[in-house]
Amino acid sequence: MSVNEQAQRAREAATALGTATRATKDAALLAMADALLARTPEILTGNAADVAAAREGGLTAAMIDRLSLTEGRVEAMAEALRQMAALPDPVGEVVRGSTLPNGLELRQIRVPFGVVGIVYEGRPNVTVDAAGICLKSGNAALLRGSSSAAHSNAALTAVLRDAVETAGLPADAVQLLDSTTRDSVKELMRARGLVDVLIPRGGASLIKAVVEESTVPVIETGVGNCHVYVDAAADLDKALAIVMNSKTQRLSTCNTAESLLVHEAVADAFLPRVLAAFAEAGVTVHGDPGVAAYSSSVVPATEEDFAAEYLSADISAAVVGSLREAVRHIRRYGTQHTEAIVTESVAASREFVAHVDAAAVMVNASTRFTDGGEFGFGAEIGISTQKLHARGPMGLPELTSTKYVVTGDAHLRL
Amino acid sequence: MSVNEQAQRAREAATALGTATRATKDAALLAMADALLARTPEILTGNAADVAAAREGGLTAAMIDRLSLTEGRVEAMAEALRQMAALPDPVGEVVRGSTLPNGLELRQIRVPFGVVGIVYEGRPNVTVDAAGICLKSGNAALLRGSSSAAHSNAALTAVLRDAVETAGLPADAVQLLDSTTRDSVKELMRARGLVDVLIPRGGASLIKAVVEESTVPVIETGVGNCHVYVDAAADLDKALAIVMNSKTQRLSTCNTAESLLVHEAVADAFLPRVLAAFAEAGVTVHGDPGVAAYSSSVVPATEEDFAAEYLSADISAAVVGSLREAVRHIRRYGTQHTEAIVTESVAASREFVAHVDAAAVMVNASTRFTDGGEFGFGAEIGISTQKLHARGPMGLPELTSTKYVVTGDAHLRL
Repeated sequence: MSVNEQAQRAREAATALGTATRATKDAALLAMADALLARTPEILTGNAADVAAAREGGLTAAMIDRLSLTEGRVEAMAEALRQMAALPDPVGEVVRGSTLPNGLELRQIRVPFGVVGIVYEGRPNVTVDAAGICLKSGNAALLRGSSSAAHSNAALTAVLRDAVETAGLPADAVQLLDSTTRDSVKELMRARGLVDVLIPRGGASLIKAVVEESTVPVIETGVGNCHVYVDAAADLDKALAIVMNSKTQRLSTCNTAESLLVHEAVADAFLPRVLAAFAEAGVTVHGDPGVAAYSSSVVPATEEDFAAEYLSADISAAVVGSLREAVRHIRRYGTQHTEAIVTESVAASREFVAHVDAAAVMVNASTRFTDGGEFGFGAEIGISTQKLHARGPMGLPELTSTKYVVTGDAHLRL
Repeated sequence: MSVNEQAQRAREAATALGTATRATKDAALLAMADALLARTPEILTGNAADVAAAREGGLTAAMIDRLSLTEGRVEAMAEALRQMAALPDPVGEVVRGSTLPNGLELRQIRVPFGVVGIVYEGRPNVTVDAAGICLKSGNAALLRGSSSAAHSNAALTAVLRDAVETAGLPADAVQLLDSTTRDSVKELMRARGLVDVLIPRGGASLIKAVVEESTVPVIETGVGNCHVYVDAAADLDKALAIVMNSKTQRLSTCNTAESLLVHEAVADAFLPRVLAAFAEAGVTVHGDPGVAAYSSSVVPATEEDFAAEYLSADISAAVVGSLREAVRHIRRYGTQHTEAIVTESVAASREFVAHVDAAAVMVNASTRFTDGGEFGFGAEIGISTQKLHARGPMGLPELTSTKYVVTGDAHLRL
């Protein structure tokens, strides 16, 4: 079936989903969870084929680990769906409302987008998460996963579609697109009018291609060149803990710190400590001359280093003369994802928050907190780094649009 | 200067605007209003050149009227700026906030987009409105008006820029792009990273071109093929008033009704009345056979008629067998702008509201109410017909994005 045909079916499914009650949608989510558990063997069989192919193809151990499913991982997927069922339904929420001077009743109400396309890589649990989040928010999902997970995703969506149907909703609420060809991504990008929004999750090159070529509105996610700025007024113990947590708590996420900026007033006191800690943690520091002065293990930083989202045990570092200079550096190299300041000064934190343009600004907290789960959203479809529609972690409300409902009694415009 | 250079300057200006206080921005708006009044003669001189060229170029009387400025019209522009100064500042509003279980303080705060591009046609007052709305919401404006209003717009922006500067904000907060070439629109569409959002206002072809080619995120505005559905349970006196107001109160606006759907149960009672009223008002009805049966003056409707946004004294009309059929018709031909139902039945109104996918749904009210002014927003930059970010009339909050500010005390992720 072509992507266009699948999108047509999704459109039809969306009309049913859009008016489904919360009770029906939650029942479907619970049925999906039950079905994953009941049919774990066929899911693991599909996954085994992907893992075998990955081994043959020489994928790294880390990639194979991300791909591999176990009974425990399937249970975790089911649990995530149960938790979604417990979340409030965003659809129908009255966002604003008033009675106009002429007596017209104005209400702005959350409605589903309709059809949401998601392009993603890697882990098969994204298939389940995305299907669940879309269903809960009343949207039909067109899922375009990685070819490396093709069998796993096929097994998972077969199970999910059956469960959706037993709950009285159309199976086409969840559809998997062909992952063996790039054409399916291209068709999806051009399905304007059928697909309401496209969310690319993955590397910079995928996101760039989608932004360039898509006529479907896009929510850009994820690239994070996040900075931690250690201010002149920082508590250096806190700074050390925040820098190390931001960089090393997990290396490969978009909210991991990739760059350290240190005010020159605390460079003498702070840099020897943090460089030692990085050395101990096995993190390579790519520093400017101001940083390199403190350790022979510092690698000279290039322009590319300051612009890099390493996603590895590397960090760029520079000494800055002022908070203003830190802001300018971030404006030049940052990706508007997450930027952190460590300071005890209210004035400095106000200035940093006001002048740094990013989805999230942390004051005395790790960059790793930019996350739907950490923010208490209960579910997350990705982290938007664009300014339109949604910015930062996207939960259920971010997967909705709105509709004005205006009720009168033969009201005419004068 | 190239569009890219202008966008660079806008970017610089945006950093100042983004942190300007409400007091400063309101002072600038009032200075802009004062300057328009003080310098009316040079504005009228510029306008006279445009009007002369329009006469020479053989533009219609209606187009020349839209282009023409008078002292009274300049006063009205100034008054609009004064009213904007009185509106609340959207920037800094806390959209949501909570204290997380670990004590982190989470706030989601409205921030300006940064740089907003607006492409528009016709009336010079849009130049002033757009400049004012952008400034109030903390955005730098790149204005690309019609070449027919080039001298008027140049005079207006010269006045506005001077006023902005006297109020202590950068003149580059308001910039006019070259309207003599299509290239400026093209450059604007590709200025991703410099321009944060692009709002095309105008005909379907402009909007289509922008949607197709822009890499800058777009908010689509305006095309309205709006329907009025007269239900079986309609009060026919109310229906007649609402239909006539929706169609004839003003012919050339996007919220004007372009299509009438009548339930067959009330066709006998309603169609003769409404067809007579249309005849009297000089409106040509393009009807299906069910409508044509009631009057020989009805012109047979084609597919194109049902899809048309006439913006003229024409309306398409059809008889439908049920509310469901009306919804299907609207889904097929509508543009998701404004759709109205006339009914006394709560059940019918609920069904229509739930199933019709549009920016605004009217129950027993004229389609003409979809308007920022009528909705009480105080200012409007356009009416969005897309689902992403903003849907329906866009006021000041719709010209903002958000930023999460997370404050802790050495909070680390575990």
